Amino acid sequence: MNTFGNIFRLTSFGESHGPAVGGVIDGMPAGITIDMEFIQNELNRRRPGQSAVVTPRKENDEVVFLSGIFEGVTTGTSIGFVIYNANQHSSDYDNMKDLFRPSHADYTYTTKYGIRDHRGGGRSSARETISRCVAGALAKLALKEMNIKITGYTSSVGEISVPGNYMDYDLDLIEKNIVRCPDPVVAEKMEKLILSVKKDGDSIGGTVSCIISNVPAGVGEPVFGKLHAELASAMMSINAAKGFEYGMGFEGCHHRGSQVKDTFINVDGHIRTLTNYSGGIQGGISNGEDIYFKVAFKPVATLLMDLDTVDKDGNEVVLKAKGRHDPCVLPRAVPIVEAMAAIVMLDMILMGKTTIL
Amino acid sequence: MNTFGNIFRLTSFGESHGPAVGGVIDGMPAGITIDMEFIQNELNRRRPGQSAVVTPRKENDEVVFLSGIFEGVTTGTSIGFVIYNANQHSSDYDNMKDLFRPSHADYTYTTKYGIRDHRGGGRSSARETISRCVAGALAKLALKEMNIKITGYTSSVGEISVPGNYMDYDLDLIEKNIVRCPDPVVAEKMEKLILSVKKDGDSIGGTVSCIISNVPAGVGEPVFGKLHAELASAMMSINAAKGFEYGMGFEGCHHRGSQVKDTFINVDGHIRTLTNYSGGIQGGISNGEDIYFKVAFKPVATLLMDLDTVDKDGNEVVLKAKGRHDPCVLPRAVPIVEAMAAIVMLDMILMGKTTIL
Amino acid sequence: MNTFGNIFRLTSFGESHGPAVGGVIDGMPAGITIDMEFIQNELNRRRPGQSAVVTPRKENDEVVFLSGIFEGVTTGTSIGFVIYNANQHSSDYDNMKDLFRPSHADYTYTTKYGIRDHRGGGRSSARETISRCVAGALAKLALKEMNIKITGYTSSVGEISVPGNYMDYDLDLIEKNIVRCPDPVVAEKMEKLILSVKKDGDSIGGTVSCIISNVPAGVGEPVFGKLHAELASAMMSINAAKGFEYGMGFEGCHHRGSQVKDTFINVDGHIRTLTNYSGGIQGGISNGEDIYFKVAFKPVATLLMDLDTVDKDGNEVVLKAKGRHDPCVLPRAVPIVEAMAAIVMLDMILMGKTTIL
Amino acid sequence: MNTFGNIFRLTSFGESHGPAVGGVIDGMPAGITIDMEFIQNELNRRRPGQSAVVTPRKENDEVVFLSGIFEGVTTGTSIGFVIYNANQHSSDYDNMKDLFRPSHADYTYTTKYGIRDHRGGGRSSARETISRCVAGALAKLALKEMNIKITGYTSSVGEISVPGNYMDYDLDLIEKNIVRCPDPVVAEKMEKLILSVKKDGDSIGGTVSCIISNVPAGVGEPVFGKLHAELASAMMSINAAKGFEYGMGFEGCHHRGSQVKDTFINVDGHIRTLTNYSGGIQGGISNGEDIYFKVAFKPVATLLMDLDTVDKDGNEVVLKAKGRHDPCVLPRAVPIVEAMAAIVMLDMILMGKTTIL
Repeated sequence: MNTFGNIFRLTSFGESHGPAVGGVIDGMPAGITIDMEFIQNELNRRRPGQSAVVTPRKENDEVVFLSGIFEGVTTGTSIGFVIYNANQHSSDYDNMKDLFRPSHADYTYTTKYGIRDHRGGGRSSARETISRCVAGALAKLALKEMNIKITGYTSSVGEISVPGNYMDYDLDLIEKNIVRCPDPVVAEKMEKLILSVKKDGDSIGGTVSCIISNVPAGVGEPVFGKLHAELASAMMSINAAKGFEYGMGFEGCHHRGSQVKDTFINVDGHIRTLTNYSGGIQGGISNGEDIYFKVAFKPVATLLMDLDTVDKDGNEVVLKAKGRHDPCVLPRAVPIVEAMAAIVMLDMILMGKTTIL
Repeated sequence: MNTFGNIFRLTSFGESHGPAVGGVIDGMPAGITIDMEFIQNELNRRRPGQSAVVTPRKENDEVVFLSGIFEGVTTGTSIGFVIYNANQHSSDYDNMKDLFRPSHADYTYTTKYGIRDHRGGGRSSARETISRCVAGALAKLALKEMNIKITGYTSSVGEISVPGNYMDYDLDLIEKNIVRCPDPVVAEKMEKLILSVKKDGDSIGGTVSCIISNVPAGVGEPVFGKLHAELASAMMSINAAKGFEYGMGFEGCHHRGSQVKDTFINVDGHIRTLTNYSGGIQGGISNGEDIYFKVAFKPVATLLMDLDTVDKDGNEVVLKAKGRHDPCVLPRAVPIVEAMAAIVMLDMILMGKTTIL
Repeated sequence: MNTFGNIFRLTSFGESHGPAVGGVIDGMPAGITIDMEFIQNELNRRRPGQSAVVTPRKENDEVVFLSGIFEGVTTGTSIGFVIYNANQHSSDYDNMKDLFRPSHADYTYTTKYGIRDHRGGGRSSARETISRCVAGALAKLALKEMNIKITGYTSSVGEISVPGNYMDYDLDLIEKNIVRCPDPVVAEKMEKLILSVKKDGDSIGGTVSCIISNVPAGVGEPVFGKLHAELASAMMSINAAKGFEYGMGFEGCHHRGSQVKDTFINVDGHIRTLTNYSGGIQGGISNGEDIYFKVAFKPVATLLMDLDTVDKDGNEVVLKAKGRHDPCVLPRAVPIVEAMAAIVMLDMILMGKTTIL
Repeated sequence: MNTFGNIFRLTSFGESHGPAVGGVIDGMPAGITIDMEFIQNELNRRRPGQSAVVTPRKENDEVVFLSGIFEGVTTGTSIGFVIYNANQHSSDYDNMKDLFRPSHADYTYTTKYGIRDHRGGGRSSARETISRCVAGALAKLALKEMNIKITGYTSSVGEISVPGNYMDYDLDLIEKNIVRCPDPVVAEKMEKLILSVKKDGDSIGGTVSCIISNVPAGVGEPVFGKLHAELASAMMSINAAKGFEYGMGFEGCHHRGSQVKDTFINVDGHIRTLTNYSGGIQGGISNGEDIYFKVAFKPVATLLMDLDTVDKDGNEVVLKAKGRHDPCVLPRAVPIVEAMAAIVMLDMILMGKTTIL
């Protein structure tokens, strides 16, 4: 299944070491002006090689649009796009052809399909997420027309977390450091941790937090297309994601209902809530407050150390470390989380237009 | 959006105080013998009034099948079913007609549709989950033919959690206590906590853990239909769910890759993993190990205490406590979590049949 | 596959000799007032036993709505409904249990599913179309708010056709005769033909024509959701349908482009076409002119004469005539064609709301 | 809507005068060997400039696959592909920028989206059908593994039709003449007619017939995914299609049931039918006999003569003839009809794998 979304839909393709990755975006509203600089900048935020804390692979990741845009404006027809692959060291993966890397998808793909492209993880590579960033960038351009803003940041790396919540920070500081953390002091600690993990040939997990602001009340579907269920599905489709929570999340389980109720109040004629434990969503539908959620990412499975495993015939073998990889997925996961959030929001807003005549 | 699933699909309908709830199940494999006693027992596990820790409302919740079953066996055609509503105290809700209960969906439904059935939450009521239990029971009957088993339990209530993980427990003990916890000592503490919260007219949150065992390797879709993304979407569609994690989940963020890698080993000619931090899923596809995940539920929003809120005209008002409600959703959430897991698993298994000729 | 539509969707269930037929309607816009008399009248137009030219089976076909309507108005939530079966002579079908009726679906269902409900055709019975008439009636109520009108009529029975096209007739005459033909003289001939065929225990085919008027320009999707492709899919899903054409249809193949071009003209500031060979649709999207199409129905396969066939073991046997059936499907097909057209139109109008922000 | 299919799905993109057309194929079974020569030959059958009876535009139409194929074999992951546009005379269309060509989609696209790429019809151009031929060629490769064969031919041009039906012809003769008609004498007449129409700057319609052989019994869905309804939807999505019929089609309306019943017989232990008025499909599901259907194509709307029309402001203007076009779409429609039939058949076969455990 390579399509995500109901009305605004991304269908993606591409293996890490094939000729290209790309996709088709369907349902993009007509009449949106394309800001190529903004789109390319979104891809740059995801790009390998952008800083010392990510993989040193150099990939330009330039998107080429093939349809759906005429004289710089979307026409409402489907938007095909490609990003050509380059700087592939496919031979780095020759030793993996017949064996299964631990905690990777090599074994499961082989079981499912009877065949796999072993080079760099093939279809299961996180390189696939470029397509999401392209679709997310287009969605952001449409959402900007409604003044909706999506902001992600690294909220923890290993045991190091930002204290407090998003309202305690100046979110403009996020892009000022290479881990994408709004607290400069914590950011420095995170950076140090990642570099130390990298030196060990190891990897480390963490969390991305994300806020969607200025969403009008009434967006989302009841029962099975709940706004947070769509967000959960979107986030859990990102490589290495292990958990999702919104509003008070897992922490809320410890509390009594009387402690975490969001009292409705009247603020200058607008119905608002005094607190926002609900995370901006009630019954699956936005209530006009900030939507916020958190995604857990495991430490990436690729390690620069020798690993025990088996080959396709079940022989126990040692996988020799090789290649160039991310010691921590978090800094590059931030734009991907934002992109998926943007895709969901635009899709749900478009869906919402169909509920009344 | 009232349909869930790709091939095995539930389309549900019904408001809590309308004539009935029910649905249509499409894609049920032909040739499965219907065990009515089993199905009714699944509904009984979800039923209000079953114990001291849940709402005292009496609802029989008897399912009537209207199609798709011939001489006790599924025919492959769609299965319509209804559960008639009874024991409705609709007048209990008269005072809510024009105001918005805090942390409920009253305000968001009204904003989205311009109209709502205010009686008992209407479509946003958890009464809708009966339909899921019916579909889940049918899915379980099909999965049983493949020896797949799904087991949920209450893993925490408020601050009280079971220590360790599911492998430390005798899961046959779950249904022996009214909170559905496999640890009898912890179960007793949970029960006391819920009763004390109930006495206060308050509510309390918690978590349900769930294990899916005997799933063959190769089930799930890569990229956008990842098995855990479908599970996340399914779980987050349940009323009051605030978080989802699978495998090592949020806890895994704290660790290094070298600490949580699942080494492949050869056990009597079968490829297995030495540990199971992955939670039985790699790259979105099952690897043959146990699948396990956890769902966070907030304390239910309905409280037996007076609450400040606003009415539809924005006037600040006090909502007077009334009605019969669950102090803690957990014991009744267990069968619902299992049902949604069963729906996802059967759907993904059927989808998997299409990947090769 | 028991769901039709994208946004406005009908999921149907039910066998002819099971307890009930029914379905769930999703995506019905909120705020539409339900006119029960109108809905029941639509079902009555489809009902068996309504005249001498249709099957004498007596079925009341009363629809019961179970959700989605509050105080007589749609709420935007899913609408469950049932029509209980009655007057079943299931034993009429005992002799068919193990054999395959010619030109029926007995053999193909058995091959596909390994099991079938043999009574009265089971799921393949045209009784299933009641659910379409219910959904179609609701769609018509919504379309009425936009002044859109859908009118079907019997345009041919056997070799007897109405001369000319729909613009030559007073469409108010359609419901004045029992074959539903706007030309009273032709109607009488059709009636006579059907009664003569009935006397022979035989059946006869024909065509239904349908006009959709007052559709604004811009409805329909390009490429794969073309308005006429959706109409074709809808019509060909009706039992006994063998062909579909719109606009100039098959007849248009004989002409040169210069003879059948629809010249654009300016009529009082509105862009119109001088002729309407296109049938109101260009490039899959409505152009504001009348949409018209025709559906071919074969003679029904059930005949009151002995028929050669085989049983499930391949033995050649004779099927003895029995039961009560339609000599001609046409008069009762008219409301079904209209219903499916209404479902498609409302669905496409709702889809169209998503193309711009 | 730019996606077609349920499991085997084509999502297409591209405008006639943009950089490329292409798409993503999802659900292609793993393990199919790619025969590039076969695929390119399918595109060549559709290509402009292939003979005197089609448009003289020269387009190479070489497909480039970007993913989903590893060492010449499909991997089960999505298959991205592009065909770059070339030989574009975009300036030929400068005079059309602000006016609406009669019987084209210029007016309806503009009404729907408020914007259109006017060059060569943009998204509404038949150039989009290349993507269908690519997906169809892949589907044919998969179907070949099951021995399923799809054969289309031109059965009429204007008033000239082949007498009899497909069983009267040597289908190997189809590709021996430039109109793709199995009757060499009729083919010559058709060719003359097209050349004469071309000389007049006019165009002419016709029909394509298609046969699908060796489909096992049991393929297709009941009720809404009927095999013939999917075929109808597929065929009516092709540019210029105005009608679809299968089996006895419109002709069957004239007959009595007793004349067109398909008697089941036992042929060497196989259940077959004596005749095949049903067209190989009963109740929406294949019965093992040949599937056959016919599609009506109108004369193409582009004519080499001056045409009256209006511009976007409603002014009546004359459109001056220009460009290079097909006088008759039929010869090139044959491979497109086959491609869409192949897509439907593979999709329905894969869907059918999910009906039993």
